Amino acid sequence: MRIRIVNPNTTASMTATIGRAAAAVAGPGTVVEAVTPTTGPASIESHYEEALAVPGLLEQIALGEQEGVDAYVVACFGDPGLDAARELAAGPVIGIAEAGFHAAAMLGRRFGVVTTLARTTGRAHELAERYGFASLVTEIRACEVPVLQLDDPASGARALVVEECRAVLAGGADAVVLGCAGMADFCAEVSREIGAPVVDGVAAATVLAESLVRLGLRTGKTGEYAPPPPKPVTGLLSGFTLPSSDVTPAPLDLAGVSA
Amino acid sequence: MRIRIVNPNTTASMTATIGRAAAAVAGPGTVVEAVTPTTGPASIESHYEEALAVPGLLEQIALGEQEGVDAYVVACFGDPGLDAARELAAGPVIGIAEAGFHAAAMLGRRFGVVTTLARTTGRAHELAERYGFASLVTEIRACEVPVLQLDDPASGARALVVEECRAVLAGGADAVVLGCAGMADFCAEVSREIGAPVVDGVAAATVLAESLVRLGLRTGKTGEYAPPPPKPVTGLLSGFTLPSSDVTPAPLDLAGVSA
Amino acid sequence: MRIRIVNPNTTASMTATIGRAAAAVAGPGTVVEAVTPTTGPASIESHYEEALAVPGLLEQIALGEQEGVDAYVVACFGDPGLDAARELAAGPVIGIAEAGFHAAAMLGRRFGVVTTLARTTGRAHELAERYGFASLVTEIRACEVPVLQLDDPASGARALVVEECRAVLAGGADAVVLGCAGMADFCAEVSREIGAPVVDGVAAATVLAESLVRLGLRTGKTGEYAPPPPKPVTGLLSGFTLPSSDVTPAPLDLAGVSA
Amino acid sequence: MRIRIVNPNTTASMTATIGRAAAAVAGPGTVVEAVTPTTGPASIESHYEEALAVPGLLEQIALGEQEGVDAYVVACFGDPGLDAARELAAGPVIGIAEAGFHAAAMLGRRFGVVTTLARTTGRAHELAERYGFASLVTEIRACEVPVLQLDDPASGARALVVEECRAVLAGGADAVVLGCAGMADFCAEVSREIGAPVVDGVAAATVLAESLVRLGLRTGKTGEYAPPPPKPVTGLLSGFTLPSSDVTPAPLDLAGVSA
Amino acid sequence: MRIRIVNPNTTASMTATIGRAAAAVAGPGTVVEAVTPTTGPASIESHYEEALAVPGLLEQIALGEQEGVDAYVVACFGDPGLDAARELAAGPVIGIAEAGFHAAAMLGRRFGVVTTLARTTGRAHELAERYGFASLVTEIRACEVPVLQLDDPASGARALVVEECRAVLAGGADAVVLGCAGMADFCAEVSREIGAPVVDGVAAATVLAESLVRLGLRTGKTGEYAPPPPKPVTGLLSGFTLPSSDVTPAPLDLAGVSA
Amino acid sequence: MRIRIVNPNTTASMTATIGRAAAAVAGPGTVVEAVTPTTGPASIESHYEEALAVPGLLEQIALGEQEGVDAYVVACFGDPGLDAARELAAGPVIGIAEAGFHAAAMLGRRFGVVTTLARTTGRAHELAERYGFASLVTEIRACEVPVLQLDDPASGARALVVEECRAVLAGGADAVVLGCAGMADFCAEVSREIGAPVVDGVAAATVLAESLVRLGLRTGKTGEYAPPPPKPVTGLLSGFTLPSSDVTPAPLDLAGVSA
Repeated sequence: MRIRIVNPNTTASMTATIGRAAAAVAGPGTVVEAVTPTTGPASIESHYEEALAVPGLLEQIALGEQEGVDAYVVACFGDPGLDAARELAAGPVIGIAEAGFHAAAMLGRRFGVVTTLARTTGRAHELAERYGFASLVTEIRACEVPVLQLDDPASGARALVVEECRAVLAGGADAVVLGCAGMADFCAEVSREIGAPVVDGVAAATVLAESLVRLGLRTGKTGEYAPPPPKPVTGLLSGFTLPSSDVTPAPLDLAGVSA
Repeated sequence: MRIRIVNPNTTASMTATIGRAAAAVAGPGTVVEAVTPTTGPASIESHYEEALAVPGLLEQIALGEQEGVDAYVVACFGDPGLDAARELAAGPVIGIAEAGFHAAAMLGRRFGVVTTLARTTGRAHELAERYGFASLVTEIRACEVPVLQLDDPASGARALVVEECRAVLAGGADAVVLGCAGMADFCAEVSREIGAPVVDGVAAATVLAESLVRLGLRTGKTGEYAPPPPKPVTGLLSGFTLPSSDVTPAPLDLAGVSA
Repeated sequence: MRIRIVNPNTTASMTATIGRAAAAVAGPGTVVEAVTPTTGPASIESHYEEALAVPGLLEQIALGEQEGVDAYVVACFGDPGLDAARELAAGPVIGIAEAGFHAAAMLGRRFGVVTTLARTTGRAHELAERYGFASLVTEIRACEVPVLQLDDPASGARALVVEECRAVLAGGADAVVLGCAGMADFCAEVSREIGAPVVDGVAAATVLAESLVRLGLRTGKTGEYAPPPPKPVTGLLSGFTLPSSDVTPAPLDLAGVSA
Repeated sequence: MRIRIVNPNTTASMTATIGRAAAAVAGPGTVVEAVTPTTGPASIESHYEEALAVPGLLEQIALGEQEGVDAYVVACFGDPGLDAARELAAGPVIGIAEAGFHAAAMLGRRFGVVTTLARTTGRAHELAERYGFASLVTEIRACEVPVLQLDDPASGARALVVEECRAVLAGGADAVVLGCAGMADFCAEVSREIGAPVVDGVAAATVLAESLVRLGLRTGKTGEYAPPPPKPVTGLLSGFTLPSSDVTPAPLDLAGVSA
Repeated sequence: MRIRIVNPNTTASMTATIGRAAAAVAGPGTVVEAVTPTTGPASIESHYEEALAVPGLLEQIALGEQEGVDAYVVACFGDPGLDAARELAAGPVIGIAEAGFHAAAMLGRRFGVVTTLARTTGRAHELAERYGFASLVTEIRACEVPVLQLDDPASGARALVVEECRAVLAGGADAVVLGCAGMADFCAEVSREIGAPVVDGVAAATVLAESLVRLGLRTGKTGEYAPPPPKPVTGLLSGFTLPSSDVTPAPLDLAGVSA
Repeated sequence: MRIRIVNPNTTASMTATIGRAAAAVAGPGTVVEAVTPTTGPASIESHYEEALAVPGLLEQIALGEQEGVDAYVVACFGDPGLDAARELAAGPVIGIAEAGFHAAAMLGRRFGVVTTLARTTGRAHELAERYGFASLVTEIRACEVPVLQLDDPASGARALVVEECRAVLAGGADAVVLGCAGMADFCAEVSREIGAPVVDGVAAATVLAESLVRLGLRTGKTGEYAPPPPKPVTGLLSGFTLPSSDVTPAPLDLAGVSA
């Protein structure tokens, strides 16, 4: 089984962290490959950056389809491009916010989230609503450390995350979801410190993607997630021939994206 | 890793079906054990029967804790006793309705359910609400075949289930969840016939339980799901010494249940 | 008119308190009988204890049906076994959380709840959602006094309950529901102290049960709450012949429960 | 105990019907008085008519406060003026839609409504949402018979109501609420014909009002429902001195209303 | 284009303030007329006062229909009589709470409200729910200054409103709605002080009413908002001949209201 | 006042239609400019196409900021890139689904939507939920005519849209929203045929954008919608210097997009 973890931003060191987190939980026989898009922002902390990240992410999905990838993980907590990716891919695609919420929901009655910047919490609430978890989320707190400073010891990020996680528990949650792929490294340590389950979305998405493949389950293709109707595209990904409705991947020309 | 699948009813042939469905999807190195309670109803199609099934189910959880079981599946679509089981078990516990809903939610935008008797749909709606999936469920349909007649060819259950699944798709769902452990055998065949993903909760719960163990995640124990406070119990499970708050399983006297 | 108040725990002194609260509000000509199950936990503060209490509670419902009881009250704030009891009984069955919520909802726009242990608030929120009152509940607060210490002056329970009720009013509620049958004694005094309506679920359920009988209303039996389908049961209540769909109570053998 | 049932329209024969329905279920020792306002529309089938009915209704509440009435019922299914009446009255005030919903909610999981004209169903849905019952209401159907033709045999109203009630049951409801005070006469007969519980809001509100008085419960007066602040009023009810915050009813000059 | 702004209370100086706020934003060629009812309370701070204000408000709508008014604004934050006014008027009718919510919803993800007395916040929440904005409202805060003291410098109202608006922003809102027509004068100044968008409902409703007229849009008349069915009315507005279903305004006798 | 209408697809004839619809309702003194992106798909009927359209759309917003545009309309019913556009623009940005929902919500209690392909209805429901209108939307129907065939008489689109609108009214809606910018031409005619208000999102968004500018209201910038934090971007729009937090537009290099 081959699972592609797409880091939607273009920071290769973050792709490496994500890849380690995924590989650490993958089952025997599962190949995990973490990839970085060729275009997009260095990190994603706004709707604008999320929008710019999506075409490069979709390129990685389209390439994966040509290469026989079985399932995909979108490794940014805003789950950018998830619906579009589900249209392109034959196999399952899972976002890390989605996966983190699903895992946490099975650990008690309610859970909270600790993320990076407060400006991203609106999107996180929107995703919780979309996936059905709005009534299970106690609160979404921010440590106000930017994504690319999470692994800088000078940022004090770990201690701040622990503090916010404790506040989440005090608010009545049974578990905490970490709201950024860049926090994957912290997960076990934070859980030990607070004495409660803490979910890293990257690891969770990896095992959930494996689970769906093992169950033989794929995105339903009878309605909204059928391959997009063929039509002219100018610029971006314009050379990409869409998979037809029998879901056969087609030759890909990525010139449009790599500009 | 050792996962116990508890069939909450007392029909051993159904336990065997459930065990096969679970074993078929479990990963290498995972031991799946399907067990039958010593007390309870032959099948569960009412709130009354669900209530009578729970003590026997909890006995199997308590025994599992003594034997080092890592995770549990409650294999009845009403998810009976799930909250109580989470208080007793150190590791994760997953219900098959819960698991089926989670898996289906990752396969598109919305899903429907096909279950046995219409009288059980109220409980299924209540569970969907509880787990957060109410807004994702398009409808819950019944084939009106009783649980113990599902594997009787004379009941025509397979054809009826296929028909109801098609109606679910026509209503705009991307996937279908089968609403009874006794339908586990049908899943692949029904999916092929309708051309859309069909989820069997038993298989889904098995891989999700494995997933949580692999992620090192357990039920949060800082609030609602801490072990029950010790106190006198008369009759049922009365000899059972509750796990203390350090979650060490204690000697068990099951006289109360087996009456 | 004969109304049976079932205390689902096995503490007889609490049954006596409950019986007094019910008798104090029952109309002329109404016989109120408070009963204690023969099996179950001494008090209910966890899902596990709730599960163990239900068979003994259902035994009391089944006996009541043989004896011509007109309506039932389930006198524990988790409303354990309410759905199952409605399947067994011909007349109405009301839980005290349900009744407290209904009464409080008619006294203003929103209300809060003050209960015993914080670990039980998850269940209380779930019931509020189930009965439709989630949007009317401002908050559910806990005084952290265990059920069986409520009437121990050393626990300081009354003062703590008054304090929590004042906090509920400060949060914008028009009324307060007391979240435990063991608080029935406090109700009038707490109301006087805080200057706002305070609802005891036991009293509320008693008059609401009377009301439904007076109106000639019974649980609807055309769907989910029809008598359970007849089938073999092992152990618990196994000798009990289920009421048939013409709702005639049948001979009862309670050996299974009293073990 | 003295309960005033206010028919908010000015059709005296309908007041008589309502009074009979209330008296038939009131307990021994309860005086039920049905009153008709001196101003307002002959029946209420629009928002405009509801608005015109409210001042006359409030006059009856204000008079009742002077005369020592213990509780009030607002006997129109739009529950007109209920919030305002709660500000004026010291004791409880209950609307018949409110009461019908509460009673039906205790008879199963969900219920439907059968009312007069389809144009009134928007208001009924709004009330269901307001009181918390939106998730319990399966549907609100109209028989399209105007209020004042309900008791005209030529309208065929009874048969039409039975037909709509049957449709409600077929849609999965456990009980039906009749959506007009003018249907009070039909209730028992319709219930017998359809074999399921049917709730008349007038009768339900009467026993619920009695229940609250018996429980010593009144509208909470610490916030939204405190008596209105004293201030000049021109015209309508302008001579009415508002109850002060110690809730003492004051002399009333009704010239403004009776114009 | 002619837009009538109805101040539902009888304080002429407040009508003048409202008129200025509306005129300041109306487009070229739009005639804005602010009117005061002949009956009703001096200000509206309770459900009772709202009820008394509605007939006088509807009189102004009915007169406007005779005079060819194109659209109406109901200039009290409780949006009194809005549904009834929509039945009477051929053109659009907009409430200022409704308008304030709509405008604020387009300025970000969520917004808060700052109003006068806390006792009115229940109604404001109810309106937010009715119009669909409940999930977008972060909180509704009160400055506890009565309506008629807002423009009295001694009340310190402006400073209190600024303080409450800052609290709303701190709670995560992107914009603030002022919850009283009497705050129209403050809007620009408060916005400058807090550095965030602040919405005055009177101005918002004026431009939204113009917008609907410009779009050729009117209240839908095929269902709930069709003209009320003709029938006898006693007293209030009793001489008013209802518009027939072809929406022709009829001669008006206002004796009933002016009493 | 200058309002830019961005057609997010690259079909210039559709931009022309959209521009005409906007110009027809703009007030005197308002300059409406309809623009077409330099990259993106020919029409938007899938999540994939929506994702590809967004960078070109954002380019038009960024250019508009340099040129002093006062407000923007996103003229595709999926409201693609709306949140990102709000981060970039100083003035208001409105989507046509958003605008259509807002306008329709003021015309009665509930409304329905008629759109192009059924596969886009999931997104439309998601937007209704996001903007708060989920409870007001009766249904979203599809005529199954692709966007680019709407103005082809051979498609029969107008008749199909009329038919679906009639079905929406029959389902209890007071108004209908047309779910595609390409239907702008049909609006008045369809409204006449069905005898009920029909909303074109393009026209609605144009007047609502004007309204907000006239009110002096802009997107709140204190939280989620502040300008994106500056950081390296590879490829797409990479030369674009983000507006700093004082919202001054900066020089733009669009090489990345036009590839």
